[in-house]
Amino acid sequence: MSFIEKLKPLAKKVEEEIRLYFDEIIEHVKPLGEFPLRYYSDTGDYILRGGKRLRPSLALVAYDTVKGSEKEGKGNITRASLPLEFLHNASLLHDDVIDLDELRWGKKTFHVQYKDWHIKHANDLLFKDPVHFGVSMAILAGDLVWSLGLNAFFTSGFKGDALIKAVNYFNTAYNEIIDGIILELDLTCRETEVTEKGYFEVIRLKTAVLFEKACLIGAILGSGTEKQIEALSNYAIAMGKAFQIRDDILGSFGVVETMGKGADSDIKTNKKTILIIKTLQEASKDQKKILGQVLGKQNSTPEEIDMIRDIMRETDALEYAEKKAEEFVKIAKTSLEEAEPPLEKKAMDWLIELVNFVVERAY
Amino acid sequence: MSFIEKLKPLAKKVEEEIRLYFDEIIEHVKPLGEFPLRYYSDTGDYILRGGKRLRPSLALVAYDTVKGSEKEGKGNITRASLPLEFLHNASLLHDDVIDLDELRWGKKTFHVQYKDWHIKHANDLLFKDPVHFGVSMAILAGDLVWSLGLNAFFTSGFKGDALIKAVNYFNTAYNEIIDGIILELDLTCRETEVTEKGYFEVIRLKTAVLFEKACLIGAILGSGTEKQIEALSNYAIAMGKAFQIRDDILGSFGVVETMGKGADSDIKTNKKTILIIKTLQEASKDQKKILGQVLGKQNSTPEEIDMIRDIMRETDALEYAEKKAEEFVKIAKTSLEEAEPPLEKKAMDWLIELVNFVVERAY
Repeated sequence: MSFIEKLKPLAKKVEEEIRLYFDEIIEHVKPLGEFPLRYYSDTGDYILRGGKRLRPSLALVAYDTVKGSEKEGKGNITRASLPLEFLHNASLLHDDVIDLDELRWGKKTFHVQYKDWHIKHANDLLFKDPVHFGVSMAILAGDLVWSLGLNAFFTSGFKGDALIKAVNYFNTAYNEIIDGIILELDLTCRETEVTEKGYFEVIRLKTAVLFEKACLIGAILGSGTEKQIEALSNYAIAMGKAFQIRDDILGSFGVVETMGKGADSDIKTNKKTILIIKTLQEASKDQKKILGQVLGKQNSTPEEIDMIRDIMRETDALEYAEKKAEEFVKIAKTSLEEAEPPLEKKAMDWLIELVNFVVERAY
Repeated sequence: MSFIEKLKPLAKKVEEEIRLYFDEIIEHVKPLGEFPLRYYSDTGDYILRGGKRLRPSLALVAYDTVKGSEKEGKGNITRASLPLEFLHNASLLHDDVIDLDELRWGKKTFHVQYKDWHIKHANDLLFKDPVHFGVSMAILAGDLVWSLGLNAFFTSGFKGDALIKAVNYFNTAYNEIIDGIILELDLTCRETEVTEKGYFEVIRLKTAVLFEKACLIGAILGSGTEKQIEALSNYAIAMGKAFQIRDDILGSFGVVETMGKGADSDIKTNKKTILIIKTLQEASKDQKKILGQVLGKQNSTPEEIDMIRDIMRETDALEYAEKKAEEFVKIAKTSLEEAEPPLEKKAMDWLIELVNFVVERAY
């Protein structure tokens, strides 16, 4: 059975819990009237659109690795895993506004969806700017989804210090993701060269910490030991970095059909990925000239894109990125061995399969 | 001694704690580099710009009303009051983007501040749209301030169920404020008439619940009884409504010099305040014609504004609003008496003075 097959039942469990949770929320919102009801319901639909549900699944598995024997009363770990999916979506909602992205899971981003809704209803509305209306609704949706995510903890049945620590991890993840976005904005909007060190700090904050917090939340709610929690933390940070490097490779070498988005977007936007950083470092004078002409050129031709891909191969930047990802895979696996008492075998195997999948996946 | 004089030492205490907290935060951010450091520091300056610090002060006083004898270990209630000020500011940061406001406490709003920063540094930046850059930085700042606010709870020393309840109140306030903004957007952007009922629901969610949660957080961290918490909740909701009605009166009848903003803005934007709702209800045919011409007219003349004010007086809408505010003042005061055991006398007197001040204030 492929890893994706193994992920499916967990993803399904999480999605069922999201539906259940939104049923409760919608019941509570009904008295506010038609528009708030539609708004909440659109927000729920957005979260249910797609995604691998990797973060909440990771919390469920981490809970199992420590054998999930809560000291402080049994809680619903699926409910308590939702905040991770909600935080991820809250961050996407605001990110899509910041990056002016128009598509998410093959559908309109939230701000575009509400821009279009506004245009359709413009005759009944006093608020006259559809673009700004869309942006406003997406800002609020991000805030709302975060808040609903946090609230899921309080309806999970977990209690006491473990719950406080889980909420604290969750909030720290949010803070770190924001730091990552600020750092990335800073690095990518300046003309100066981005270093590999800067890149790794950005992907740690923007991507790896949320995987880490997923593991920590699962482990703390399952009453894991300090050594178990440390092992899972090290695993997840390394796995998250491997995940992002693979994302960056797919951003230049992925197959459009399986990814649902262009595999040339990183080149067209001159995104400071490890591939592009390394290519720029290792390029010859002639190659640098081509890179300077094509990187960041929104309307570059398929031939130009292929030239950049060739340079990425010729400079060994592609090989370098793949090797780096493999290094993190090794760190991730070794880290798991350091837990005391050892992690539950079946759940730990799942984590190992996950990190293998992360660097092999085509989407 | 006027109430404002009595508020000052509390506000000062809160501001000192904000400074202390930001010193800790800045220390933690330094390794991220120059831009994140500047960004955090600008965020701190924004929070420290101004405001009466009413919400955290209310938490401090509520803590005193229940005699603040924590069952679960002594915490720093001033630190635990900061989330309320941070949430208020987070909400202002996003609100200013949504409302396209340019001034806050007599200075540039955050999105305008970063738009101007971008224009000044445009030569060094790849990110080319200053307005969108400003909006992006303000979205992130709102997220950041919320997250830093929540984190203050975890550095306050409070523990256990009381802390969990405080965090839960805090998050509920956030959710309710978002509901209020959505409801208000809905009500004000439709051509249909806004009812008084709709208005009261908006001000409950947008304004009153944060005062309420300030009281609840103070009382729960001070180990107040259920009856005490209920009394404080009812007090704060009524006080908050009186507060907003007074705000609305000042929005049409305030003195520019003491308010730091135009006392005609509500008329120029046709904000659905109780004054405007009641005026529209009670106006004669001729008055309605004038209202239709002037309300919402951004470039209306001082003479036109005065005509609207006259109609507000002639229709008794002004008197009606003042009477409504007085009704809520009475409810607020009566509610305090229902606490069991009774609230501590001196702190309770402060709450009574606050609600008197709320409807008398000129700014």
